[in-house]
Amino acid sequence: MTEPTQKFSEDERRGLYRAIYERRDVRSQFLPDFVPDEVLARILDAAHHAPSVGFMQPWDFIVIRDAEVRGEVHGNFDAASRRAAETYEGERRKLYDGLKLAGIVDAPLNICVTCDPQRSKGSGLGRKTDPSVALYSTVCAVQNLLLAARAESLGVGWVSILDFDQLRSTLGIPPHLTLVAYLCVGYVSEFRPQPDLQEKGWETRSALAEVTHYDRWGMRVRGGQE
Amino acid sequence: MTEPTQKFSEDERRGLYRAIYERRDVRSQFLPDFVPDEVLARILDAAHHAPSVGFMQPWDFIVIRDAEVRGEVHGNFDAASRRAAETYEGERRKLYDGLKLAGIVDAPLNICVTCDPQRSKGSGLGRKTDPSVALYSTVCAVQNLLLAARAESLGVGWVSILDFDQLRSTLGIPPHLTLVAYLCVGYVSEFRPQPDLQEKGWETRSALAEVTHYDRWGMRVRGGQE
Repeated sequence: MTEPTQKFSEDERRGLYRAIYERRDVRSQFLPDFVPDEVLARILDAAHHAPSVGFMQPWDFIVIRDAEVRGEVHGNFDAASRRAAETYEGERRKLYDGLKLAGIVDAPLNICVTCDPQRSKGSGLGRKTDPSVALYSTVCAVQNLLLAARAESLGVGWVSILDFDQLRSTLGIPPHLTLVAYLCVGYVSEFRPQPDLQEKGWETRSALAEVTHYDRWGMRVRGGQE
Repeated sequence: MTEPTQKFSEDERRGLYRAIYERRDVRSQFLPDFVPDEVLARILDAAHHAPSVGFMQPWDFIVIRDAEVRGEVHGNFDAASRRAAETYEGERRKLYDGLKLAGIVDAPLNICVTCDPQRSKGSGLGRKTDPSVALYSTVCAVQNLLLAARAESLGVGWVSILDFDQLRSTLGIPPHLTLVAYLCVGYVSEFRPQPDLQEKGWETRSALAEVTHYDRWGMRVRGGQE
């Protein structure tokens, strides 16, 4: 077994699980309070310590505090969200219209996370059989950032309803990079006990057993068939 | 600011950061010790509580303990790794040949994580402007699992050098799903202080400042130009 010094104490273990279970995708509870540079540095450094294929570290972080830039991104989101709304009808449309889906302007800090799939670091190790793994590494960095933010009492909202070509132009991102995540970051009035989309009746959490298989797809009990 | 009860204690915050900084991609240090069902359930449930676009929860987990299945996957990896080796020459090739790149058979437990991009949960919310977000949600689940494993003193190795068509056939995974991650999981003799690929001289960690920009791409100081 592992060395005693490498084991987690009960409190440390609880901290990791609290971050996972109490993290929320925040849209409505942002406070305007300034996020100190040292706190920002901690969540970015946590992201930078994500696993990456071949130790490639394919990510970049664009930290956005400028109100003009955030205003432009908000306009982008607003138009994209109106286009998306048109695809829902009846009760779903009413539910959609009642959702707040981004806090781009409310949050004092936005972070855009990109992936450079051509980065030479790592010398291509592990990237030959599935080129998506560079993207996956970047998403691991995002998830580290989300969890570190929760431990720092910061809320984060991940905005995916955006015209990404327009966002690329707003932020001046080179054409060969992939825009992976646009995040709104700030202190919050509270962390809600349940995900927003569960609370508002958009969707429910599935049971873990429904998404678990044993040894081969579709085997729902160990050593047995469904 | 947040309610006092929602804040993390110092120990809890350290626990989250320890998981992030002390997580290693493990290939060489696996012990054969059985991973108890309740520990497995905790790391899977942590994965299941990842953020997902529209609360879609597009992931499935195939838990593999069967030695025959693991043997077949190991053969798959072995052939793929030999093909990859041919792409390196000279010093790089020597370095490559000295790396241990998977613990599929050494680890008592393997977990394959898949993504169903067509899952109806979430009603398509947030998936219209970038369909990759379903994949990204699944990767967030993987990263939660990696961190929870570290807090449980379990090592995990993410194997990306595989023929994924062959893996799909071995595990019987339906054609419309994406195979996102193949993980080797087990207790370990130790967690190394540095990533394997750093220790072995394959790659170095970049400085955080090299991958951080302010307000727009390429601006390296706040309010200034590179």
